Amino acid sequence: METMRREIEKIVVVEETTHATTEPGCVVGVDVGGTNLRLALADMSGTILTRWSSSTVALRGPEAVIQLVCSGAKSMLQEVAAPLDALRSIAIGVPGVTDVDNGIVIATSYLMGWRDVPLRALVEKELNVTVVVDNDVNMAAMGEQEAGSAKDVKDFVFLAIGTGIGAGIVLNGKLHRGSSWTAGEIGYMLVPGASEVPAKSEEPGSLETMIGGEGIKAQWQKLWSGGDAALPTEFNATDIFDRALDGNPHAQVLLRQSATMLARAIYNVSLVLNCPLFVLGGTVGMHPALCDAAQKALDQWIIPVSPRLIRSALGTDAQLFGAVRAALEAVPSCPVSPAVWASSS
Amino acid sequence: METMRREIEKIVVVEETTHATTEPGCVVGVDVGGTNLRLALADMSGTILTRWSSSTVALRGPEAVIQLVCSGAKSMLQEVAAPLDALRSIAIGVPGVTDVDNGIVIATSYLMGWRDVPLRALVEKELNVTVVVDNDVNMAAMGEQEAGSAKDVKDFVFLAIGTGIGAGIVLNGKLHRGSSWTAGEIGYMLVPGASEVPAKSEEPGSLETMIGGEGIKAQWQKLWSGGDAALPTEFNATDIFDRALDGNPHAQVLLRQSATMLARAIYNVSLVLNCPLFVLGGTVGMHPALCDAAQKALDQWIIPVSPRLIRSALGTDAQLFGAVRAALEAVPSCPVSPAVWASSS
Repeated sequence: METMRREIEKIVVVEETTHATTEPGCVVGVDVGGTNLRLALADMSGTILTRWSSSTVALRGPEAVIQLVCSGAKSMLQEVAAPLDALRSIAIGVPGVTDVDNGIVIATSYLMGWRDVPLRALVEKELNVTVVVDNDVNMAAMGEQEAGSAKDVKDFVFLAIGTGIGAGIVLNGKLHRGSSWTAGEIGYMLVPGASEVPAKSEEPGSLETMIGGEGIKAQWQKLWSGGDAALPTEFNATDIFDRALDGNPHAQVLLRQSATMLARAIYNVSLVLNCPLFVLGGTVGMHPALCDAAQKALDQWIIPVSPRLIRSALGTDAQLFGAVRAALEAVPSCPVSPAVWASSS
Repeated sequence: METMRREIEKIVVVEETTHATTEPGCVVGVDVGGTNLRLALADMSGTILTRWSSSTVALRGPEAVIQLVCSGAKSMLQEVAAPLDALRSIAIGVPGVTDVDNGIVIATSYLMGWRDVPLRALVEKELNVTVVVDNDVNMAAMGEQEAGSAKDVKDFVFLAIGTGIGAGIVLNGKLHRGSSWTAGEIGYMLVPGASEVPAKSEEPGSLETMIGGEGIKAQWQKLWSGGDAALPTEFNATDIFDRALDGNPHAQVLLRQSATMLARAIYNVSLVLNCPLFVLGGTVGMHPALCDAAQKALDQWIIPVSPRLIRSALGTDAQLFGAVRAALEAVPSCPVSPAVWASSS
């Protein structure tokens, strides 16, 4: 637990939230990432009182993650001198397909390989508090809508491009999650220039192979082995895009190719949904060079849709802010005693 | 007007509709097609009392179409010996992008090239009755949900494949039309194997060029010029698919190719929406060989979605039945005098 660290911040996430109340108590938002677990404690008006984070690099099983969530929540409550029963709800964003109705993480890929984990019940049992779980990209979309680039926008798509690619789809102000919770899993999208060979279980999808972080790295290494010894082979996607902005021609080729593939995927999503706005997030998606180049590529196809791309305003905080919002929305309107929650979980 | 004909049928469209009432009066559903205008008169329980149709081949402007709608409606009322004021509402499905809120046909392609036609106001002025207009594929989706292959299904996509390709998207029981009324315009979708060159105005989209009726014909002619003089060059898509079922190898190549492209497009739509069911309609989409071959192709990609394909149960009546349903839903709950409608239109 030597990687654990605390951050004490006093920042306002949600200044004028519809969920804000002056009720006593507090909520916790959690972002379960592949490398970090991040928690934020907020009061009932949505103001973040403190944060907590820990590495998840060596962890795989849900039990260890649940223990960290509990430790973090208790540590933050102690930090603000609040008793355990001041905690009204917890919302947890996880990197995988999540059954929100039943609080079950159906599957995660890449990092932990969870299958059918009843995360809500497990955390409720530990903390005797209302728990909601959702996909992390959906959480990020909620965060951007509450306090970020899509503030007050009713129809938009949050597109997370990191190692994987996923979309959080907001239609008429609400998340569209799909009939089996996989809406927005566009990392598998088939676009011209990407492979149409079906992905195997645990493998990245066709689009991810091209423009996910690892995909871009792999293509860089292919380009690099073709000649440009002046640049390191171990560059990641954002290094490469930085070099493209500096004028390196190989990096520019890869930026242009990535932007074109991304634009094709966004155009396809847009043909289906006709959403006017796409918010690009995730470590790769946040890069300004990618956003600009993708908008330029996208502007070729103006019929019958012409969506606008903007970068996430919240960055890596989008998931966490969305989780705080989800926690606030989940607070039971009538306070329920811990005993009741214990018996219902 | 020599092509005008009347059909007198007594069929029940909607046996147990939620919109069915025993109120007096009747409604009219209209399907404006590129070659035919079709009308159905139904009582307030959704039972179709009579039908009327006319050719639209020589017509281009909205005025002539509106006059035909009025003639047809009056003729049907006369047919069932009902006075003009028995008519409570009319719903009109048009082959183009339609602003449902304002009753404006923004654009039609191929056949009539309408631009910003205030169809609702124009028909209301003529008939002093509540009018609704919507895209014909959306109408067809409503028809299939009311009385066809998607009966009582809350999440599905109706996919019309004829000369053009379009999708009617039903999410949580309601049509999703998009922020500028173009949701589901997937005839432009970019999939591997199709052109990524942007379509020009008035031109078919990338996917339509491959698997729309005209696209399939064009590819058949290309194949044919390569050698198979035993089959006519003027075959249309359904002729070709029939021959594929008969074992003709060239026709089988084209069927397989069309099915693969269709499966890629459906997979992409499914990644976005995660809808479990796709209903295939339209003259090309209705062909059983295409549906079977597309399902087979689609079953290659099982991660993370595996939608089921079925053929439209209503066929060319889907639009008309959907329009009858839309007309029933549009009936004002308090009967309004014709004079009020005249002043508000």
